[in-house]
Amino acid sequence: MDPNHEILFEPVRIGPKTLRNRFYQVPHCSGFGTEKPWTQAAHRGVKAEGGWAAVSTEYAPFSPDSDEAPLIAARFWDEDDMRALRLMTDAAHEYGALAGLELYHGGAHIANNQTRVPAVAPSQLASDLEAHVVPKEMEAGDIERVQRLWAEGAVRGRDCGFDIVYVYGAHAYLPMQFLSPFYNKRTDGYGGALKDRARFWLETLEVVRDGVGADCAIASRIAVDALGPAGIHLDEALEFIHLADDLVDLWDVNVGSIAFWSKDSGTSRYFEEGYQLEWTGGIREATAKPIVGVGRLTTPDRMASIVRGGAWDLIGAARPSIADPFLPQKIAEGRTDEIRECTGSNVCIMKVDGFGHLGCIQNATAGEEHRRGWHPERFSVASNAGKGVLVVGAGPAGMECAVTLGRRGFEAVHVVEASSEIGGRMRWIRRLPTLGDWGRIVDHRRVMLSKLRNVEVVTGRRLSAEGVRDYGAQIVIVATGSHWSGEGVQSSTHEPIDGASASLPYVLVPEQVMGGKRPAGPRVVVYDAEGYFVGPGIAELIAKEGFAVDLVTSLDVVSPISDLTLEGPMLRQHLHGAGVTMHRGVTILAIEPGRVSGEDEFGEPWATDTDGVVLVTQQVSDDALYRELVADRSALEAAGIEAVYRIGDCVAPRMISEAIFDGHRIAREIDGPDPAVALAFDRERHVPDIDPVPTR
Amino acid sequence: MDPNHEILFEPVRIGPKTLRNRFYQVPHCSGFGTEKPWTQAAHRGVKAEGGWAAVSTEYAPFSPDSDEAPLIAARFWDEDDMRALRLMTDAAHEYGALAGLELYHGGAHIANNQTRVPAVAPSQLASDLEAHVVPKEMEAGDIERVQRLWAEGAVRGRDCGFDIVYVYGAHAYLPMQFLSPFYNKRTDGYGGALKDRARFWLETLEVVRDGVGADCAIASRIAVDALGPAGIHLDEALEFIHLADDLVDLWDVNVGSIAFWSKDSGTSRYFEEGYQLEWTGGIREATAKPIVGVGRLTTPDRMASIVRGGAWDLIGAARPSIADPFLPQKIAEGRTDEIRECTGSNVCIMKVDGFGHLGCIQNATAGEEHRRGWHPERFSVASNAGKGVLVVGAGPAGMECAVTLGRRGFEAVHVVEASSEIGGRMRWIRRLPTLGDWGRIVDHRRVMLSKLRNVEVVTGRRLSAEGVRDYGAQIVIVATGSHWSGEGVQSSTHEPIDGASASLPYVLVPEQVMGGKRPAGPRVVVYDAEGYFVGPGIAELIAKEGFAVDLVTSLDVVSPISDLTLEGPMLRQHLHGAGVTMHRGVTILAIEPGRVSGEDEFGEPWATDTDGVVLVTQQVSDDALYRELVADRSALEAAGIEAVYRIGDCVAPRMISEAIFDGHRIAREIDGPDPAVALAFDRERHVPDIDPVPTR
Repeated sequence: MDPNHEILFEPVRIGPKTLRNRFYQVPHCSGFGTEKPWTQAAHRGVKAEGGWAAVSTEYAPFSPDSDEAPLIAARFWDEDDMRALRLMTDAAHEYGALAGLELYHGGAHIANNQTRVPAVAPSQLASDLEAHVVPKEMEAGDIERVQRLWAEGAVRGRDCGFDIVYVYGAHAYLPMQFLSPFYNKRTDGYGGALKDRARFWLETLEVVRDGVGADCAIASRIAVDALGPAGIHLDEALEFIHLADDLVDLWDVNVGSIAFWSKDSGTSRYFEEGYQLEWTGGIREATAKPIVGVGRLTTPDRMASIVRGGAWDLIGAARPSIADPFLPQKIAEGRTDEIRECTGSNVCIMKVDGFGHLGCIQNATAGEEHRRGWHPERFSVASNAGKGVLVVGAGPAGMECAVTLGRRGFEAVHVVEASSEIGGRMRWIRRLPTLGDWGRIVDHRRVMLSKLRNVEVVTGRRLSAEGVRDYGAQIVIVATGSHWSGEGVQSSTHEPIDGASASLPYVLVPEQVMGGKRPAGPRVVVYDAEGYFVGPGIAELIAKEGFAVDLVTSLDVVSPISDLTLEGPMLRQHLHGAGVTMHRGVTILAIEPGRVSGEDEFGEPWATDTDGVVLVTQQVSDDALYRELVADRSALEAAGIEAVYRIGDCVAPRMISEAIFDGHRIAREIDGPDPAVALAFDRERHVPDIDPVPTR
Repeated sequence: MDPNHEILFEPVRIGPKTLRNRFYQVPHCSGFGTEKPWTQAAHRGVKAEGGWAAVSTEYAPFSPDSDEAPLIAARFWDEDDMRALRLMTDAAHEYGALAGLELYHGGAHIANNQTRVPAVAPSQLASDLEAHVVPKEMEAGDIERVQRLWAEGAVRGRDCGFDIVYVYGAHAYLPMQFLSPFYNKRTDGYGGALKDRARFWLETLEVVRDGVGADCAIASRIAVDALGPAGIHLDEALEFIHLADDLVDLWDVNVGSIAFWSKDSGTSRYFEEGYQLEWTGGIREATAKPIVGVGRLTTPDRMASIVRGGAWDLIGAARPSIADPFLPQKIAEGRTDEIRECTGSNVCIMKVDGFGHLGCIQNATAGEEHRRGWHPERFSVASNAGKGVLVVGAGPAGMECAVTLGRRGFEAVHVVEASSEIGGRMRWIRRLPTLGDWGRIVDHRRVMLSKLRNVEVVTGRRLSAEGVRDYGAQIVIVATGSHWSGEGVQSSTHEPIDGASASLPYVLVPEQVMGGKRPAGPRVVVYDAEGYFVGPGIAELIAKEGFAVDLVTSLDVVSPISDLTLEGPMLRQHLHGAGVTMHRGVTILAIEPGRVSGEDEFGEPWATDTDGVVLVTQQVSDDALYRELVADRSALEAAGIEAVYRIGDCVAPRMISEAIFDGHRIAREIDGPDPAVALAFDRERHVPDIDPVPTR
């Protein structure tokens, strides 16, 4: 270990418990909750194994009037929920970590669509997160009931093995709603001056302490600055922390609110590593208790300097712990170059909140620990490890596949890449404005490839079908990627755009723009029918070069997928700031020199004059090599090739996370019955204990 | 029974099976799938009991490359899924109904976010439903695999008790994708001429028949006109039906595609009862097999005339069967006035696709049959049925509560309403353009109230707290509703709008508009910070009167909630057609005579001149009576009042469906431990079989 990092491995006492080091997995959503108890336990357990001193659940509602289903929280209502989470506390303890339970009440924001009870809040004010949710103003009995349920939840948590129980107030949830004049207009002793607005939170801490006694540490999570209206600001946070300090064993500090969660879970596009220190770095003066902070930290030197400087005692992490569950252990063993650094893409949040199950752009095993049995750092030797494997293409899928095959003990894996460098399209994506940290996808794999003696990387060599057959491998995996349609084939018409061809000087595709092609005049339309980062990225890039850019999208909003990564509002504000004019709901149907035309969302004609159009409509697989290979089975046989597979965008153009997953998966299953078809996985559903076939 | 309706009760043979009558619950989503087997069985079982001749599952994917999770389908992958759905087939058979399994493959549209495999489709064209999904073009092996899995799914279905298995092609799913030139650009014998585009579907029917033999009827669902590009049109549908007729036992016909599902599950706002007959009424000529059609049919005379006219053999229903599971039985018993007619609001679809669990605006028991044990037509006598109950207010919550209390055998229930008529706000909501059928909420309850001898309705009497205390009831339930803020209190600021007061001539709230108040001049701004039907409804109403209307919303889209009911695009088109100018993302912060001002989504100043503003910002509970009553416990005691509860919008302003649910729930639980707090319900999750408390 670098001696500079030793400070990170000092134990820290929090109330009655001791953390073995300073690495603390703060609560984060997963899509597992108490619905997928085995997945929950495996995911947190792997982090415990990787060296984190504490692993925490996601938000755990203890009351049916704080229920966000179908979003999956760790509903912690009853004994069966204790059974579910006991798997996790057992897993944490098995590896020497403490387990934290983030007890939570969302108050005004929660529609309770499945429990069908009203939201409750200090005052009857529509949620700033969900405008149609208008809560019940809590009566005295509601306050008593919620506090009682909070304490009962804490006791159940203690009983099923949790070491740390939370009074979660951050992110503009119920305790913060009482604390903030934005939500709290009460006049009954729970509103008004700060000490009265603090009363609900303080009383809750007290009843929880009364419940768990000295058996658990009590953590409280607080957004010390709402960075907007929905909460409090730093001066009041310091005052509140001072007021509550005796009741708390650990302050878990962050910033923002749930309607502006984007400012807490800040992506690398808009926030630097450690950005939260601007606000959470100054609360030491208000507290005598340990502090855990976050800020997408992945660099051990930075972590050590934060602790050394006294800002925080613990390095909190959600996303960096997903990207690399073994981050602490890698630092401890001096293998810091092997850390799989979080890219800050918030693909994890898209996966959880949009798709219901955690995943990660960097770590293909995240969320797969139980259901597919994938461990991030342990790999079984493949039963066919003696076969030579050729991977054609070193983009995200190809790189990940080669690394994973290497770790599965194949004797000889060759990755052959046509370009002079590995990385595939990541080589230019990382050059789009604000997307530099996504380059970590390549950087990490470059390190791993260089360390694997059984994997050879060959660049600058474009293989033909004949070249593949002559290569000498028994297994061939084609990972040749995809490209954007140069004819503007798009989802709404399934046809090329009239007059579109990327061979024309005034029609461009993203790859051409990144290669330097530009229109002859100053006006450019970027047409995005995809809705993620490429269209806006190109628009921002060329706007900064001085072009007058119209970003036109056929979709209802500019970059709807960025809304799933919490980036949408900032992305649009950013584009607005860069002078890009945005047009939503417009389908472009024709391009001619100097002009594009089509129709708007109401079917009305739409057109604009322009000097060039960048087409970001749909992608097309580069599958010619694969098709040529499989079309001639006898030639393959003659060449001694036993199997040809394809992975990543060459199969179907997908998000980067899925291309990487695909490369990983085929390597994990390369010795299975049919590597082209993914194996089944465990679903953890409740199955009736009956015969599947009725007696007739 | 009306003799005119007898034709509806004739049995119908479909292949090897016989339907006992002509009422057929077509497949529809529920949020239950194979995840909530008991709820699934109870929901379909209640319909079987209510007289439907067949009850069907929702879409049942048999292959992991057609997986829409987190949306809940009836994943039908393995033996455990057979166990799950066997509960449903048993329930159907117990009540003499056939059970149908809608085997399904979604092809190009399915992101497979949880299974993480690529979408597959005839051609590599981005989905018109999910623009970022670009599928794999199916190889010959993929076609063979999907067809084999379809047949294996059918065999599993047969084995666990299904009588009808589907080859589901409608809604632009995989078989339709092959059939439609919009999706299919193949040149390998599966594309080109109609007979080649039909090949996939025909082969699939054949392998399914080979699998199930004569043990099951085979139904095929087809959208006979896509009403847009994504499918086929009537002429080709007739040709295909003719081609496939020998392979099918039942044609389940509808219209539209999944990207325009709004045209299949058409709401009453934009589609008349029976509207699909325009397309599906003419396919008889192409087939010798029975036909089931749909079109939000609730009127028995209309149903009988359709059968008599020969258009269809079976009356299909999804939504009408949710609103009234006992519709067939009520017709059979001549109780047609008691049918709880579907309003055509698509709240069920919002519930399923938006919130993950079926519910209904009309039928509070939908989706609650198992988890809360509520039967739509059976009610236990309350243990406190001897108490007199006073319900104050006859809006949706109050009406439903009184009906349910009546059905629970209370000796004396009085509903006292201040207005001259029952219905609450539904009295004017049904007068908004296109919302007439929502009036069925009142109409049904008026009938039921008139039939319950133990329930008395008193109108035109406004009760004070003293009036309540003097009334003579032991249990009081306050259901006094809510009103729109006259000061423009809104979600984003939690403050009144500067200068707003509904007492001014140029500031209006919805209730005032419906009472006749109008601005002095021709220009009106309708400001909607809620996002459902009231703002757009008012805008359309006054635009049709000749006002120049600007509909301004603080939200990202006009009426986002209407997108959840599939109404959004049509609603916006309708407003556009009515001449309403729409402004999204604008927050109004100040009103002065002749002008409103605020800021746009980028924080830039925004203003417009106007003669008046209608404020649809947030609602506020009318809870003064409730508060006055509970503030004086001794007066209640002196008056012999044992309990005071409140329900519906008087607690917290909610959607109409939730107000009705609340009124129903308290009546169901009025003899429980604390009727103010909802009882727990079953969650059907998988719980580890361990002690909740670890051994220490």
